[in-house]
Amino acid sequence: MQIQFAKRMSNIKASEIRELLKVTEKEDVISFAGGLPAPELFPIEEINEINQIVLREFGAKALQYTTTEGYKPLREWIANRMNIQLGTSFDEDNILITHGSQQALDLSGKVFLDEGDVVLCESPTYLAAISAFKAYGCNFIEIPTDQDGMIMSALENVLEKTNNIKLIYVVPTFQNPTGKTWSMERRKQLAELSSKYNIIVIEDNPYGELRFEGKPLPSINSFDTKGYTLCTGSFSKIFCPGFRIGWIAGDKSIIQKYVLVKQGTDLQCNTIAQMIIAEYLKQYDIDKHIERIVEVYKRRKDIAIECIELYFPENIKFTNPEGGLFTWVELPENISAREILDKCLERKIAFVPGDSFFPNRKMENTLRINYSNMPEDKIRIGLKTIGEVINQYVKS
Amino acid sequence: MQIQFAKRMSNIKASEIRELLKVTEKEDVISFAGGLPAPELFPIEEINEINQIVLREFGAKALQYTTTEGYKPLREWIANRMNIQLGTSFDEDNILITHGSQQALDLSGKVFLDEGDVVLCESPTYLAAISAFKAYGCNFIEIPTDQDGMIMSALENVLEKTNNIKLIYVVPTFQNPTGKTWSMERRKQLAELSSKYNIIVIEDNPYGELRFEGKPLPSINSFDTKGYTLCTGSFSKIFCPGFRIGWIAGDKSIIQKYVLVKQGTDLQCNTIAQMIIAEYLKQYDIDKHIERIVEVYKRRKDIAIECIELYFPENIKFTNPEGGLFTWVELPENISAREILDKCLERKIAFVPGDSFFPNRKMENTLRINYSNMPEDKIRIGLKTIGEVINQYVKS
Repeated sequence: MQIQFAKRMSNIKASEIRELLKVTEKEDVISFAGGLPAPELFPIEEINEINQIVLREFGAKALQYTTTEGYKPLREWIANRMNIQLGTSFDEDNILITHGSQQALDLSGKVFLDEGDVVLCESPTYLAAISAFKAYGCNFIEIPTDQDGMIMSALENVLEKTNNIKLIYVVPTFQNPTGKTWSMERRKQLAELSSKYNIIVIEDNPYGELRFEGKPLPSINSFDTKGYTLCTGSFSKIFCPGFRIGWIAGDKSIIQKYVLVKQGTDLQCNTIAQMIIAEYLKQYDIDKHIERIVEVYKRRKDIAIECIELYFPENIKFTNPEGGLFTWVELPENISAREILDKCLERKIAFVPGDSFFPNRKMENTLRINYSNMPEDKIRIGLKTIGEVINQYVKS
Repeated sequence: MQIQFAKRMSNIKASEIRELLKVTEKEDVISFAGGLPAPELFPIEEINEINQIVLREFGAKALQYTTTEGYKPLREWIANRMNIQLGTSFDEDNILITHGSQQALDLSGKVFLDEGDVVLCESPTYLAAISAFKAYGCNFIEIPTDQDGMIMSALENVLEKTNNIKLIYVVPTFQNPTGKTWSMERRKQLAELSSKYNIIVIEDNPYGELRFEGKPLPSINSFDTKGYTLCTGSFSKIFCPGFRIGWIAGDKSIIQKYVLVKQGTDLQCNTIAQMIIAEYLKQYDIDKHIERIVEVYKRRKDIAIECIELYFPENIKFTNPEGGLFTWVELPENISAREILDKCLERKIAFVPGDSFFPNRKMENTLRINYSNMPEDKIRIGLKTIGEVINQYVKS
């Protein structure tokens, strides 16, 4: 065979996490690798019950084609929720239902990116956003961050000097992979800069509902008077990921473009999955459900941090997130997290080496720890083992 | 706002069908517009029962993330089914589960098409394939067809003379929009030409299971000794479209590229939807279910043809399909199907004007009639009305 693939295919590599997931699923390993929510918290009984109600009430409509935009009562709920929690001013026509927030990123690439365009992002940033955007032939410029988020002087410096910037991609709340959260001030400043330079911001927010402490912060979109900020959201972390239901929200004229693009991409999302979520939100108290999730994850996070303090060497840095699924560890500069991973995999422990999260500069001494998917005893055993392995490298 | 969208956005227009669907859903219209399956044939009770079984048996696994490739038992069933029905030689690793066969087309564009590449297609061809591929900046060359499918001399002529051909896109069985079916000979010939010129064939097959008469024909892939043919398939027309479960099948090395691309696009398809279909296929007789669908659609098709013969003017051409959802009508050359549609919409009857199905040359005197979604009495009333309107134009 002599097959000519599209040029983009040379940029598209297997997601390390998805590949690691295959390993971790197969064997009896303790995995800090995925971003998997805890399955014991999925509302299985409720979904079973609601499924029956939806089929009884809506019958064949729940199984038929529907509009690309998505199920209206669900879009109404999302708009209302965002307005209350994030300070936005949306109605259902600001919302498009997508196959998880991952598809919201893919569609963003399709709507905005030409080959050679530039995407600005936090350094490090969400690995699968890199692959989603890369498929459209863009380049990345990484903007440094501190404990309050992206450093605005560095961002403005790049905005001034660079042509073809199309998107600024950020995860301002409980960032993947670092767990960091942007301050109010930085959110305001980013909204201002995006207006000043006419650049679209993609504000990815799949974890925002999972806050362990501190006050909720408004979305960047809430400070955006011109409509340059688009926000993603997802039911994967507060309901279940298997349904593949997320969304993108923003200015109506832009969302209409997304709708057009989704039509040609896959027509629409699963009809009954949308209806089941909408009906669940009507019949059950999602806040109570989220409280339960947060309680479990906070405890797991606390144990993870305790273990890192206890078992990891002293000369490392790590984040103590206010919410979400991840903490981020920086080892001494000469140490490779990939080597650590190889040793850990031999002992059936997995995590993701941090270099995958940098589109350009690869900090090989970093790693991401997911704490949401393992029970407490396994977190202890697993992090103790990782600590032992790291200590061997630090000492040798 | 000064927003710069990607260049591709200037090529992406609203799908006329999806827009028409909005009209037809709202009002009490008789619609021959969509490609909607008959909802009264969806296995609602069975889905309800199986959903409970799946949640009981697999629990949280049915709601968690899973592999990008898709649920293994479902991929096994598909491979086996294709081997029996279509003469292919697949196993589960030849199959990727997609969000309907529409996503299989989108991913095909992503895997193969660079800007300026050429896609060859039947003239006319499936409208949403045009939009799926156009998003990747390709151009189309339409190859004429006769009653046996694409005319091979015309195809070879173009293959010889044209640079940058990347894909040949065909719907060889009960084509959308014409309802035509390719002969065995043409299938063989296309497989040979694709090997000779090293060009990938996308064989779109969402309707193949819905045969009213005549003998099933093997897939183009079954004649392809080199692996250039990729086949799509879908549960939308034999189970239900709301689940958004289809697939793409082909050479393993190519399917692996699709898997990589799907990872960055939306991670995976709905976990429980895949499990429900697999479990349904285990517990129920899908052939019996398809028989029931075929029986209803054949009767509706017969009535549609009878009405066209009875109420449409004599100097028109139309197809009498051996299966699938559509018949295609060619009016005298000076008549615009769009004008007819406007008049029909006033009388609450809808269909799709045929010019949308041509990427380049627009035959305005054509229209597509879907007969699967309306009960028999409405088919009679609707086609009688369309016939009356056409007659006014033909006579005037």
